[in-house]
Amino acid sequence: MTQWIRHFRDGQAGDRDLLGGKGANLAEMTRIGLPVPPGFTITTDGFRSFRDRDGLVPDRLWDEVRTALVDVERQLDRQFGNPNCPLLLSVRSGARDSMPGMMDTILNVGLNAETVEGLACLSGERFAWDSWRRLIQMYGRVVLHADGEAFEHALTAARSRAGVEHDHELDLATLQQLVEEFRAIVATTGTPFPDDPWEQLQGAVLAVFRSWNSPRAIAYRRSTGISGEAGTAVNIQAMVFGNLGAGCASGVAFTRNPNTGENGLFGEYLPNAQGEDVVSGVRTPRPVEQMASDPEFAQAHTDLLAVGDLLERHFTDMQDLEFTVERGKLWMLQTRTGKRTANAAVRIAVEMVGEGLIDEATAVRRIRPAEIDALLHPQIDPSFDRMVIAKGMPASPGAASGTVALTPDRAEELGVAGEAVILVRHETAAEDFPGMERSRGILTARGGMTSHAAVVARGMGLPAVTGCSALEIDIAAGSIRVGEQTIREGDLITIDGASGEVLLGEAPMLVSGLGPEALQLLAWADRFRRLGAPMPTPWSDRCGQRTFGAEGIGLCRTEHMFFAPGRIEVMRRLILAQSENERALALDELEAFQTTDFDGIFRAMDGLPVTIRLLDPPLHEFLPPEAELPELAESMGIDAPILQAQIDALREVNPMLGLRGVRLGMTFPEVTEMQVRAIFTAAANVAREGIVVLPEIMIPLVSTASELAQQRQLIDRTAAELVARTGTPVAYKVGTMIEVPRAALLAADIAEHADFFSLGTNDLTQMTFGLSRDDSARFLPAYIASGVLTDDPFQVLDDQGVGQLVRMATRNGRAAKPTLSVGVCGEHGGDPKSIEFCHHVGLNYVSCSPFRVPVARLAAAQAAIANGL
Amino acid sequence: MTQWIRHFRDGQAGDRDLLGGKGANLAEMTRIGLPVPPGFTITTDGFRSFRDRDGLVPDRLWDEVRTALVDVERQLDRQFGNPNCPLLLSVRSGARDSMPGMMDTILNVGLNAETVEGLACLSGERFAWDSWRRLIQMYGRVVLHADGEAFEHALTAARSRAGVEHDHELDLATLQQLVEEFRAIVATTGTPFPDDPWEQLQGAVLAVFRSWNSPRAIAYRRSTGISGEAGTAVNIQAMVFGNLGAGCASGVAFTRNPNTGENGLFGEYLPNAQGEDVVSGVRTPRPVEQMASDPEFAQAHTDLLAVGDLLERHFTDMQDLEFTVERGKLWMLQTRTGKRTANAAVRIAVEMVGEGLIDEATAVRRIRPAEIDALLHPQIDPSFDRMVIAKGMPASPGAASGTVALTPDRAEELGVAGEAVILVRHETAAEDFPGMERSRGILTARGGMTSHAAVVARGMGLPAVTGCSALEIDIAAGSIRVGEQTIREGDLITIDGASGEVLLGEAPMLVSGLGPEALQLLAWADRFRRLGAPMPTPWSDRCGQRTFGAEGIGLCRTEHMFFAPGRIEVMRRLILAQSENERALALDELEAFQTTDFDGIFRAMDGLPVTIRLLDPPLHEFLPPEAELPELAESMGIDAPILQAQIDALREVNPMLGLRGVRLGMTFPEVTEMQVRAIFTAAANVAREGIVVLPEIMIPLVSTASELAQQRQLIDRTAAELVARTGTPVAYKVGTMIEVPRAALLAADIAEHADFFSLGTNDLTQMTFGLSRDDSARFLPAYIASGVLTDDPFQVLDDQGVGQLVRMATRNGRAAKPTLSVGVCGEHGGDPKSIEFCHHVGLNYVSCSPFRVPVARLAAAQAAIANGL
Repeated sequence: MTQWIRHFRDGQAGDRDLLGGKGANLAEMTRIGLPVPPGFTITTDGFRSFRDRDGLVPDRLWDEVRTALVDVERQLDRQFGNPNCPLLLSVRSGARDSMPGMMDTILNVGLNAETVEGLACLSGERFAWDSWRRLIQMYGRVVLHADGEAFEHALTAARSRAGVEHDHELDLATLQQLVEEFRAIVATTGTPFPDDPWEQLQGAVLAVFRSWNSPRAIAYRRSTGISGEAGTAVNIQAMVFGNLGAGCASGVAFTRNPNTGENGLFGEYLPNAQGEDVVSGVRTPRPVEQMASDPEFAQAHTDLLAVGDLLERHFTDMQDLEFTVERGKLWMLQTRTGKRTANAAVRIAVEMVGEGLIDEATAVRRIRPAEIDALLHPQIDPSFDRMVIAKGMPASPGAASGTVALTPDRAEELGVAGEAVILVRHETAAEDFPGMERSRGILTARGGMTSHAAVVARGMGLPAVTGCSALEIDIAAGSIRVGEQTIREGDLITIDGASGEVLLGEAPMLVSGLGPEALQLLAWADRFRRLGAPMPTPWSDRCGQRTFGAEGIGLCRTEHMFFAPGRIEVMRRLILAQSENERALALDELEAFQTTDFDGIFRAMDGLPVTIRLLDPPLHEFLPPEAELPELAESMGIDAPILQAQIDALREVNPMLGLRGVRLGMTFPEVTEMQVRAIFTAAANVAREGIVVLPEIMIPLVSTASELAQQRQLIDRTAAELVARTGTPVAYKVGTMIEVPRAALLAADIAEHADFFSLGTNDLTQMTFGLSRDDSARFLPAYIASGVLTDDPFQVLDDQGVGQLVRMATRNGRAAKPTLSVGVCGEHGGDPKSIEFCHHVGLNYVSCSPFRVPVARLAAAQAAIANGL
Repeated sequence: MTQWIRHFRDGQAGDRDLLGGKGANLAEMTRIGLPVPPGFTITTDGFRSFRDRDGLVPDRLWDEVRTALVDVERQLDRQFGNPNCPLLLSVRSGARDSMPGMMDTILNVGLNAETVEGLACLSGERFAWDSWRRLIQMYGRVVLHADGEAFEHALTAARSRAGVEHDHELDLATLQQLVEEFRAIVATTGTPFPDDPWEQLQGAVLAVFRSWNSPRAIAYRRSTGISGEAGTAVNIQAMVFGNLGAGCASGVAFTRNPNTGENGLFGEYLPNAQGEDVVSGVRTPRPVEQMASDPEFAQAHTDLLAVGDLLERHFTDMQDLEFTVERGKLWMLQTRTGKRTANAAVRIAVEMVGEGLIDEATAVRRIRPAEIDALLHPQIDPSFDRMVIAKGMPASPGAASGTVALTPDRAEELGVAGEAVILVRHETAAEDFPGMERSRGILTARGGMTSHAAVVARGMGLPAVTGCSALEIDIAAGSIRVGEQTIREGDLITIDGASGEVLLGEAPMLVSGLGPEALQLLAWADRFRRLGAPMPTPWSDRCGQRTFGAEGIGLCRTEHMFFAPGRIEVMRRLILAQSENERALALDELEAFQTTDFDGIFRAMDGLPVTIRLLDPPLHEFLPPEAELPELAESMGIDAPILQAQIDALREVNPMLGLRGVRLGMTFPEVTEMQVRAIFTAAANVAREGIVVLPEIMIPLVSTASELAQQRQLIDRTAAELVARTGTPVAYKVGTMIEVPRAALLAADIAEHADFFSLGTNDLTQMTFGLSRDDSARFLPAYIASGVLTDDPFQVLDDQGVGQLVRMATRNGRAAKPTLSVGVCGEHGGDPKSIEFCHHVGLNYVSCSPFRVPVARLAAAQAAIANGL
């Protein structure tokens, strides 16, 4: 019995852990009778033993390889190292999870001065010597770390000597000379190229083993989340040749179009070439359909269509194939699940359901939430040659081109005039909102993935790149320095919010949107998900989120209504009022604005709940920058120094932990009353027209039950007064945000006064970690890179820490009030990993920005499916 | 059987809940045979029935009062309302817990046009009419809410008409006229003065009932933590008269000096006066010793000494007595445990142990931690050249400087705003309490050592000077004249409650310190307490805290060492270093400073642990104000705009939640290394001299186990290098502050890398509440005033919320590592309520500021004693 080796014929697709993805699929293809060159796999057990013994090859490994080799020799009637009928081998890595291009491969193993002659007899002299020089080059580079450039220099010199353009035009003599030159290059490493085929094989296997821990493989695994523990298998397989002349070719193909999802073989082949020639792009390959009309390859094409169809049905997914045609005969070298664009993924999944290949749950499971997200935002045309000048954080997906504006005012001005604008700032603040709203994209020099700019941009569906520290913004000069370059206000730039890249000039965009297949898939998702109704935040005053399938508004930020021009001034007059009368006048004006806004929202959301959060931000967010102060003072008829003193008094050391949220409502009950009056006036107006109004009033930042009890009393009383006055009863709920750790700890007490809990996990994360998202950019990325934190806790809900509070709040809140509705509101509501957590905790709903609603619907369905519905 | 009434002879001291404190003690005195005028008590049951029935008097209450009254009439052979032999009654409140001056009293009940004539026959005309005008005045003010000023005006006018200075000099005719005038004043309320004695009695009882919920009583209970549930009893007692002429007097006395604790009767008496005359401060009373040398009172004095001695032994505590001498005979009107200064409290407790009256545990329990704190209260620096402008009575010890406020409202307003206020009054009254509570000290122009101002101030531990007759207070003009000088409201003055002196301006203060009795008491406390070793924070770099009985240093803030002049510049060079070389140079300099500092601390703390917290604050705290920037730029040879940009980049939106604590150590590991090198260099130097060095290195603001693991590794490695270099092994511990909610939630994981947890409850409170201490002033006082929060959570540990995290961290941390030492570090470590909480949680120690150490030792002992040791 063998311990470290498995013949292809003895394995199957399910053995991925042991054989790696490539090896398992080679075994599966062999098992179902497809033409696979014979070979065997050194298992991942073998690799792990090697690794655990600090690079000592397991006992008996080489013995087993020798024995297995004899088996392959017998099948093909050739012998490894035999000058008369040499068998050549390929040695390829194969981890469980595909790591394309990250690990090593060595082809043509087994050639030396004797066997090259034997190969020449069998397959032609030119081919044999070309194969040998390929082996020396590949082996030298991969196993002995010879300088890869030196080989390329020698090849270039040879081509120019010979006066040819391509390597395959080189004649025998040149190739023979190149072999000598290549051997000399290898010798510079201090180790000569080994002439012993067995020594070549051992070297190749060890090189594959070692490549598992190459820096690029480690980096790839870290970026894709693949564990470093699994290790790689090594596939040793008889060579077949696509470069033996007529009737020979190598190719790659997908069973469906990976860009569009269209059903039908899609791929390329290159006559008289080895696989590496196809992917290297040195010669331009032909579309795989042309094989059909080429007599040399017509049979192979028919066979390939049949094989593709068989494999797709066998694996029930679109396959990515590698094949070689050797003198007219098709050989399969690899099959794997094909990578595809978001659009293609959705179309393939939906069509495969129609074809009966997979069921709906499988289709829903197969689409990554990020793919749905990608559909909603413009993408830079992948064929476009990007000139990246800087890179920041990918803060809000999608891409946009526009002229640079360095102030929100300028952005607003240009935006109103219909120009596409990219607002570029050090960082954004609440008062920048009108300018942001008029921009096509946001670029900031500071702040992370959850900075104000990022959160607002995601809420509005705007692309954003944040924390792009290479930008040196000089507002006075109206320009930005990026290294040697200067971008002036008015220049065109492009940002890619998915990659964090900043490009000079305009870029062509692709916009897909949610097509019929995507809508079909989401409709299926809705049937599976148990986690209720992702409810979005409305952006601006448009209520377009209904189109994304939201089941209400989870967070209507009333303060955004005060930032509009014409209103912010009133808000400032309220905050800085010098008399009761001034204050009352400002409140009246604001009430009128709010009533109009709520009227519009209630109409748009007819029949769906609207969760309205009462005033939340610190008051100084509404105040003007210092430069505008004299003007404001004059308009208010106050001395500037007095106004300045008043504004200074409102400044806070830690505004996040200051006078905001319910503390405003407790300190200025008249503001709560004003907001409640606006809600119920609008509700009564709209309800009289037969529209169904379901307001849910939410008190933010509660940390004691008394706060909620007192505000609720105020709301109930004001509502009763309004209803008495309008004569139109309005059903409503009162609830709270659980966003302060203490509120989660005291959820049972607080629940007594609440109809619902909205878990504000953005702020809860900040306070639980003691980490301001505005200030985290200087160390949080390093924490994540070094693994101190697995994820950015503002993107992925911290299950261990914040998650404890979420579980506690939900459990204790519901224990105290079984009818309590509990949801998550914030960035995490649109994050798939976090949504799965919410599903497990048994929340009622998640609420997120409108553009994340489809993502949330899908993720909620996947969580339900993964957990047996 | 009676339901609502209890005769004095039927009760005892243990019936406080039912009879109130005054009633229970009257009963006890009656029971042990002391001379108490007969009477009875309406029980607190009666009051509660009245309250629960919304002010409806319980069925049969008046019947029972009538029956009881007949009993009293029989004992004295007088009759209530009988014109021939009228019985007069006093009606006094009496809650379980003493609320001095807060509730109502009415004397001389039973007088009218007929009975006054009977009383005149028995006791003299002038006396009878004076008693009647007192009744009308008191009843009018208290029961019918007539304007108190109006009575005073009429009295003043009468005195001036009669050409006399004092009320007791008024003649019969004037008194008779006053009675008419007083009745007219009462009539202005719409209700005439009731001539029916029974109606008077009912009105008086109901007034006492209602006074339980007067604003001043509510304010007093809130400030002293007395529950509003218990309610008051009402004592109805036959009047005895200290104002019947010769051989008559009223007085108050303490069985020991309430200021110094000296053993021996201490008090005052006023011949020919009622009790209210003594406390009102209108006439200045005589020291009680003088009774001995006055033949009229010699016997009464002898009796009083015996009674005092008996009562003190009976109650095993210093007593506060009220007495009346009626024609040479001593009557006891009240005994209660006497209020006393902190010094007196300690001396009395320690001496009573010596006298065998109480045991040590009782002595320890009897001292309120606040009293120990008061011992450490500021005193005017003796070397200060005092500019004394006036002198009054040294009514309550301690000294204070503050701005003058002439009304309690003004004092309250300024006090709430955080200003140090000295309240200056003619004399204080019960309704002044809220203003007194907000003041730093009290100064009155009238009244003695037992005036309202003096008693209340001592109770609150406030410095007070009373009877400072040189002050001419003009409230309308907002100023005080003192001889030629004028002090305006808002000016700064200083009072010395130990000397009675008043000083212009502010004075430097010194702390009084702990005398031998206090040290004795604390030594006993140390024997009882189980909660270990209160460990203080060192202030400055002096290690004087050893003298307070600390068992180590719980928090050595290393950053304080960098704020010293000459060092802050080096710190700035480190933070703003333009090159690696500059940074290294600055680090070297800082290391030298720190090494010196640690050397000093280790020497001073020989044998005690020193907990050293690594660099904690955000770096911008070290940076200069804007104005100093050009200078710094020049000294560093950098362009000012570049330096400005660097400083701007360090600014944080929420510094509390930014790059600080362990995040600094993670981002700049070289700073951690530098600090560790300094610690181990100093430790080795000192240890070589035979000094025992016990450094405990503490990592602040940890929120993940990895942070602590990585920093610990760095510390262990650096320590090993240093030990290898110095050749002197140093035992050390590494622990962390648990001050971020997540750290408490993940205590089990974090404990794996920690030798100790220091629960940093200051920051933990800020983050758990989402409440910045710096920004809470605009709403936190209102939250506490309105009862949304019971206590300021920064003073008293929030048991419900933050307490959950403390318990979780302790339990889970110890479960993961049973040897883990856990303590609280911060303000709460010096707060008695919080210390009791810590005792219950089973912490190992508390750490607080040095001046709180004695308080913490005492509170820890009391928690242990209260919980059965």
